[in-house]
Amino acid sequence: MQRINVAIIGWGNVGRGCKRAIEESKDIVLTGVVRRPASLLKNLDELKNTTVVSDIQELDKVDVALLCVPSREVPEKMKMYQKLGICTVDSYDEHEHILDLKQDGDLSAKINKVVSMTACGWDPGTDSVVRALMKMVAITGKTTTTFGGEKGGRSMGHTVAVKAIPGVKDAVALTLANGRGKHKRRVYVVLEKDANEQKVAAAIQKDPYFKQDPTEVLFVKDINKYNTLHHEGDIERTAMEVHQQYTVSGDNPDFTANVMVSCARACINAMAKEEYGCYTLIERPLIDCLFGATLEEKLAGY
Amino acid sequence: MQRINVAIIGWGNVGRGCKRAIEESKDIVLTGVVRRPASLLKNLDELKNTTVVSDIQELDKVDVALLCVPSREVPEKMKMYQKLGICTVDSYDEHEHILDLKQDGDLSAKINKVVSMTACGWDPGTDSVVRALMKMVAITGKTTTTFGGEKGGRSMGHTVAVKAIPGVKDAVALTLANGRGKHKRRVYVVLEKDANEQKVAAAIQKDPYFKQDPTEVLFVKDINKYNTLHHEGDIERTAMEVHQQYTVSGDNPDFTANVMVSCARACINAMAKEEYGCYTLIERPLIDCLFGATLEEKLAGY
Repeated sequence: MQRINVAIIGWGNVGRGCKRAIEESKDIVLTGVVRRPASLLKNLDELKNTTVVSDIQELDKVDVALLCVPSREVPEKMKMYQKLGICTVDSYDEHEHILDLKQDGDLSAKINKVVSMTACGWDPGTDSVVRALMKMVAITGKTTTTFGGEKGGRSMGHTVAVKAIPGVKDAVALTLANGRGKHKRRVYVVLEKDANEQKVAAAIQKDPYFKQDPTEVLFVKDINKYNTLHHEGDIERTAMEVHQQYTVSGDNPDFTANVMVSCARACINAMAKEEYGCYTLIERPLIDCLFGATLEEKLAGY
Repeated sequence: MQRINVAIIGWGNVGRGCKRAIEESKDIVLTGVVRRPASLLKNLDELKNTTVVSDIQELDKVDVALLCVPSREVPEKMKMYQKLGICTVDSYDEHEHILDLKQDGDLSAKINKVVSMTACGWDPGTDSVVRALMKMVAITGKTTTTFGGEKGGRSMGHTVAVKAIPGVKDAVALTLANGRGKHKRRVYVVLEKDANEQKVAAAIQKDPYFKQDPTEVLFVKDINKYNTLHHEGDIERTAMEVHQQYTVSGDNPDFTANVMVSCARACINAMAKEEYGCYTLIERPLIDCLFGATLEEKLAGY
């Protein structure tokens, strides 16, 4: 069996989830974790048997770098690793910029003869595949995607965006369903000492992640009681006789991490065919993401 | 825009659904319907503006033949059209023989430099894509697929199989959910004059489509009150923290027909890359099945 050597770039919830996913995947080996400076992760129990470095070039052979960093760092990191001849996988989630990222990354991937899989998380990612299926089944229908349900679920992208705002010490951003395909946001924030509530709330509400939805900002002393990793989503498409519904409920970082780790296989399969480039999930054969030594194993349960 | 010329082979429920799907698809043109002998369809109102022939060679250029015939005729028909240099799409549904059909058809497709998309209906087909996604998201989980719900839905493959049994004048086979991933079957049969109820029931119960499930056979005078085109399915996968569920409810022949017509695009895209062969849906990029003149259009809603 071909084993794929991967490095995890960044050590947040998705990075941790990738480590768990790799441990469940017989064909994938964790070469190390990259975090600058590596000393930040020095005493973590969860990494005591893992190599941690500040620079990927300190590691042995790496086939694929899993970019477990905030979306806004993905474009730069993708190109940095491509230039080193390393494939990348990311779960970039800014829907309106995916095409730009893909086209830019595609050029650089081709020059450096590598493969990047982009926007490969939950949504965009597996949800995008389902929406593609729905377009096939119900040709002239309308698709809506609703996240968060009634109770709300933690959005990783939104939480990361809030944490980057000056004056924010810690935060959790929840997404709540607000009618078909519409959402509202609820953000719990622990302020830095001396930070100004009004300024922070205004900065959140005008951030691109939030500006299009009603957003409530609540200031709290302790974030832990508002925290959750759970999320759920509903994709529906209705067209004449056909009504399709897809409900997914899961632990958001692990969900995303599992998809990313599976996509490391897609990189290696594309490399073998010399199909260098930057791809979204619907642009590659899904079978290339599945574990299995033979076609029969991969098609099992087809 | 490149227009794809397709022919519909056979004129049952799926063939009719394909005609409707083609009419909704701006990039696909119906060249004609093939039914031997064509005279059988001569006076049908629904075909009054459509060319109907006994042999595909009587038609103008055909890029893709949509094999809207019973599954058991698919292997022979696929190879027949491949030899004429025509791509094929089918919704072959005998799960346990898909790999054989694919490998056999792949060889013949490569020799004849064509592309065949096989097992591209609802299940196998779009459900298979969802099961592949689920394997990515929940690595060590268990997937179950349950069709029919409580009220039951009409299974096309099972209905066609019953109709082929000697002594059966007309029939409808319903699939009913019978616990997680298990099914029971209910078959309504109108007998030919002088046919024997016991013999027909025994033949149905030992048919490969039925022998593994509890099957009730009911003899009726008029099939119409038991008929329905509706069907619904539930795919679930549970693994540790992740529970995914996918519920689809639709009009079975139209659902299948829409998927098949979308797969005509996948044939043409693979032909353009000279990637001759016989593929299941998870072996090709899904984007190749979508309508759209540009990458931007195809990725819209990604």
